Order: sequence, then C-alpha cells, then structure tokens
Amino acid sequence: MTAGHRVGDLGEFELIDRLASRLESGPGVVVGIGDDTAVLQPTPGMQLLATTDGQVEGSHFLRAGTPPDAVGHRLLASNLSDVAAMGGRPRWALVALTLPPDLPLAWVDGLYEGMVTLGQRFGVTIVGGNVARSPAGTVVDLTVLGEVEPDHRLTRAGARPGDAVFVTGWPGASAGGLELILHPELRAGLSEHTVRELIETHWRPTPRVEAGRVLACRGVATACIDISDGLAADLGHILAASGAGATLDTEALPVSPALSASHLDVERLVLHGGEAYELLFTSPSTPPDLGIPCRRIGTIEAEPGLRLRRPDGRVEPLAATGHDHFRSQGKGA
Amino acid sequence: MTAGHRVGDLGEFELIDRLASRLESGPGVVVGIGDDTAVLQPTPGMQLLATTDGQVEGSHFLRAGTPPDAVGHRLLASNLSDVAAMGGRPRWALVALTLPPDLPLAWVDGLYEGMVTLGQRFGVTIVGGNVARSPAGTVVDLTVLGEVEPDHRLTRAGARPGDAVFVTGWPGASAGGLELILHPELRAGLSEHTVRELIETHWRPTPRVEAGRVLACRGVATACIDISDGLAADLGHILAASGAGATLDTEALPVSPALSASHLDVERLVLHGGEAYELLFTSPSTPPDLGIPCRRIGTIEAEPGLRLRRPDGRVEPLAATGHDHFRSQGKGA
Repeated sequence: MTAGHRVGDLGEFELIDRLASRLESGPGVVVGIGDDTAVLQPTPGMQLLATTDGQVEGSHFLRAGTPPDAVGHRLLASNLSDVAAMGGRPRWALVALTLPPDLPLAWVDGLYEGMVTLGQRFGVTIVGGNVARSPAGTVVDLTVLGEVEPDHRLTRAGARPGDAVFVTGWPGASAGGLELILHPELRAGLSEHTVRELIETHWRPTPRVEAGRVLACRGVATACIDISDGLAADLGHILAASGAGATLDTEALPVSPALSASHLDVERLVLHGGEAYELLFTSPSTPPDLGIPCRRIGTIEAEPGLRLRRPDGRVEPLAATGHDHFRSQGKGA
Repeated sequence: MTAGHRVGDLGEFELIDRLASRLESGPGVVVGIGDDTAVLQPTPGMQLLATTDGQVEGSHFLRAGTPPDAVGHRLLASNLSDVAAMGGRPRWALVALTLPPDLPLAWVDGLYEGMVTLGQRFGVTIVGGNVARSPAGTVVDLTVLGEVEPDHRLTRAGARPGDAVFVTGWPGASAGGLELILHPELRAGLSEHTVRELIETHWRPTPRVEAGRVLACRGVATACIDISDGLAADLGHILAASGAGATLDTEALPVSPALSASHLDVERLVLHGGEAYELLFTSPSTPPDLGIPCRRIGTIEAEPGLRLRRPDGRVEPLAATGHDHFRSQGKGA
C-alpha cells in the first residue's frame, strides 16, 4: 500500500494488521493487539485511572486544514491531561476509529504517528482498538488508562479558603492559535514566529503529566483540574466541588510572549479560551519547582462565586464560562 | 426536558449531568463521573482486561429501524463478549458519544437504558465518558474494563491437535435476524414467533460471560474466542494463533429452532454470519455444564487449514471468511 491508497481499499483485518504493525509493546502489556481484549498487569497498590475523549471531523478539526499527526497528538494530549489532573501516571491507550472508505491511508498513518510519538514521550502504549466504517466523517475516540497512588490522588474537591490558585504554562495560547487558524485575516501584522508558536500550541500541546506527578507525590495541591474547558469554567468546577469561591487578579494572569505579541483579545482567551492542557490547582503553600512556568493567579475564599480584581483594586464578578465542546458551532482545526 | 427535546437543546455539561443522573455507582468505583478521570480499585492479584467496540449509525444500525435500547444493549454485549472470550469478569465501562444536535433526547435515554440494564445483569458500572457534537450521524464507542486471574486467562493460542472444538448457543441466529430486518420480504411464511426470536437475538444478544468464567476457572479450554466475526472466521483466528488446522462436522452444527424454522440459508448463516456473541473454544476433555447449550462441532488437527465433513463422509475445504465490519456495505439494524 502506497500513497494514494484509501482506507476502503483494505478490509477490516488488513487495516488492523497495518495499524498494529506500527505499534510496539510496552511495560505491563501481557497480551496486546490481536486477541479479544488486551491483558494488562496493574501495579500492586495503585488505583486505576480511566478517561475517554474524542476528535470529530467537522467539530474538532477540519481534515483539509489540520495535519493528521496533530489530530492524533491533540487526541492523546487531551486524555493525558486528564490523567495529569489526577496526579496519575498514564500507561495504556485504546483507539476506536470510525473512518470513511475514501479516507487516504496516509491520513490514518499520520494520526497514528502523532499518537505514537507523544505516547512514547510519556510511556503510553496503544494496546487495543476498533475499526468501523463511517458513512460520513471521521471520528476517533481514545481511552487512556493510568495509575495513581491512592494517597496521592488529586481531585477537584479539596480547595479551602486561604489556598492560593495556581496555573501552569500559558492558558489562552491554544485558543489564540485556533483563532488564527479559523480567521487567517487575524494573522495580518503578526510575525511568522508568533503565528507559528500559537498554532503549534493548538495543534501539539504538551500535557502537564510530570507537573501533575510532582504535585501529587509532594502532596501540596488541595485540588487540581486541567483547563480544557477554559480557566474560568474549570476553576468553577473546582469551586463547585469544593464548596468555595475565589478571586483572581488580572495582573497576575500569565500571557505567553506569542499571545502578548498578537492583536487578539488576550484576557478573554486566557480566562475563557478552551482546549488548553494546563493544570489549575490550589495549595496553601508555595508549590515546588514543576520544571515549567507556574503562576499564582488568585485566592480561594469562603464567599461563593468567582471574581476578578482589576489593577485599580476594583472587584467584579467573573462568569465561569468557557468552551462548550458540544454546543459550540465553531469548528476546530 | 420532556419528549420532543433534542440533544442540541442542551449544552455539554447539561447533557453530561442528565446522563450521569441515570447512573449508579458500583463496586470498585472510587471516583465516578464528575472528575477529570474515573478512579477505580483493581482487585489485588488480578490482571486487567481492556477492549473497545462501537456502534455507528448507517453502518451498524439505522436510527429509524432500531430501538435505541437495542443499540445500547448490542454495544455493551459486543464488549462483554470480548471479556467473556478471555474468561474475564467485566467491571467498568466508559462511553464516548458523538451526537448530532437534532438527535432526540429520548434516543439517548433509550441508548443508556439498554446499556444500564444489561450492565446491571453482569455487574458492570458506567464510570465515565465523553460527549462530542457530530456534524453527521451518531457514533457511540464503548470501552469495557474487566479482570481475570492470571492463571485462568483464555486466549486464541493454545488449541492442540486432538482437542475437540465446541461452540455455545446458536451461531447464525443473530445474522438470520439481521437478514429479516434488512429484507422484510423474507419474513413471508414465517410465524410471528420465529421472526421475533431471530430479530430479538440480533438486537439483544446475551454475552456468554458466565460460560467464559466457568471455562476459565475450571481450566478446561485450551483456546477461546467469541464469534463476532463469524464461526469460520473466528475459528480461523484460533487456528492461526495456535498453529493448527481443524475439521468441522456439518451434522454437528447447532441450529436454533427459530433459524431451523426459517427459509434462510442456515449453513451459510451458522458458519459465516457475523455479530453472534457465542463462545468458540477448544478442549481435550468434555467441558462442564455451562448452563447454556454447548455443542461439539469438530476436531483440531495438525494439518493446517479448515475443513468441513459432509454427512456422506466427504471432506471439503471451508473458507475462514465471515463478516467484515469494515468493508461490508450492508447496513446493520
């Protein structure tokens, strides 16, 4: 099979064989692809983490505008980010493909390349999957399994009044990249470097797995979540689960150099832009070095609700709204 | 939300809340729906089983012709059948929904009813999921996690010359039901009971979980698989994995009373019809009572290949072909 071939040129088992031949086995895999189920060896004493997320053509990406490896990368990153938010170590993944017969085989190869390359960075092995024929667009669902020490596990509940609120990395950069993809006219006047930085952050985000492990193992975070729904919305989830409120300081919000150099609506993107795989966590103490930028952006309070403090000291309500993956009519890329 | 409402009337979180409110927690669920990942408590000493399968509108079912609970039932049954084929105990499930906004909410409720009802029968808890917007049809992917004792695990490899080949229940009945759904003219002359039996077997098959557990715990099966690809194709998988051949006796093939009463091509349906969730296994000894019909249908041989012995003693080659879920243009129902 060479370039130009399409998925429909192969039968189910030929396609599975082709995909499986690209995959390597890994630690804890007793039986991998090729039997009725995968058989995995859990680590004694650890609890199991399980999460699933998908990429849908026409909703999360446009086939014409997105490199296939970026679709695979983002798909795995979104699942790894959920494991990171629990303080866990990701281990295994299962892929469910729904593919139209006219999909180029090269696209599927690219998808797997994106997943396998990112998986190798984080020790994640693809151990199983399913292939189905799609009468319409492409849907790829991924399930990731991980492990965590029971006494280290992070959840959304546990933030206490007086805790500081921290966020890793650069919230808003991924959403900024998405705006530049969907509206190329916004690139006018921006340097090629800025454009590439923001789009790259959208296409190939780095899930904060190591940072989540440090937070979990050092026991410093009282609550943790990833901000895939947007910083304000996901802080809202922590507040709801913890029964608390919070005030954020606008001056403290981190803005990536590329986002800062853009003409985009930075505050909206940082607070409400979705699909960022940074960690938002609360802690009564200064966190240890996570190896990535980490900024204190506010404080947990007993008073319910979410508020924003302006540089002049004025405090205003902040809507805990973000990116609705379901209702949104905007097409990702 | 009442009858007449559609999926697009709700946002992502409202829809998730609606679905989660129908679900109960279960054994081994430390953190269920509502955090970044599910947290599960594995049983010490057991290995983990993981499998994924999907139902795609227009490929596996037609929305107009299939009760939504049957889609949910079949989806979970297909995954449970894979766990059964490994001799495992199914425990937890994650659902990935890709839904068009105009899908009636009642359809999603029905889907969950089918999954939850069957799950309760087998002690399976839905612990997580994802919801995405579909620009086209409905896709539902399900991942099921189970457990098995390392020394009881069944696989496809292990069949030895001299072993007998057994199959549970009624292969071909599900495929017969599908033919009656796709070609209603074939129902002419059949009793209402026969039609209902066959269609019901297609819509709401019983995965052979208990039988798989008995085979595993009693250590009598040398190889095992479910026949979702068709009896001949799946026996072919056992033979390939075990490095052996087999001869089946046509006279020994089990034919359900309803299939027998139909005018359908019984031999083709029993040998090559897909989507049956019976177990095919090999054993050097007579298996214990499995609580369901179980028939010896042939013998494993050293000579590679698959053969069929006719009542007159004539032996002919049997193609290890079955139902190709991917290439097939036939629409399920």
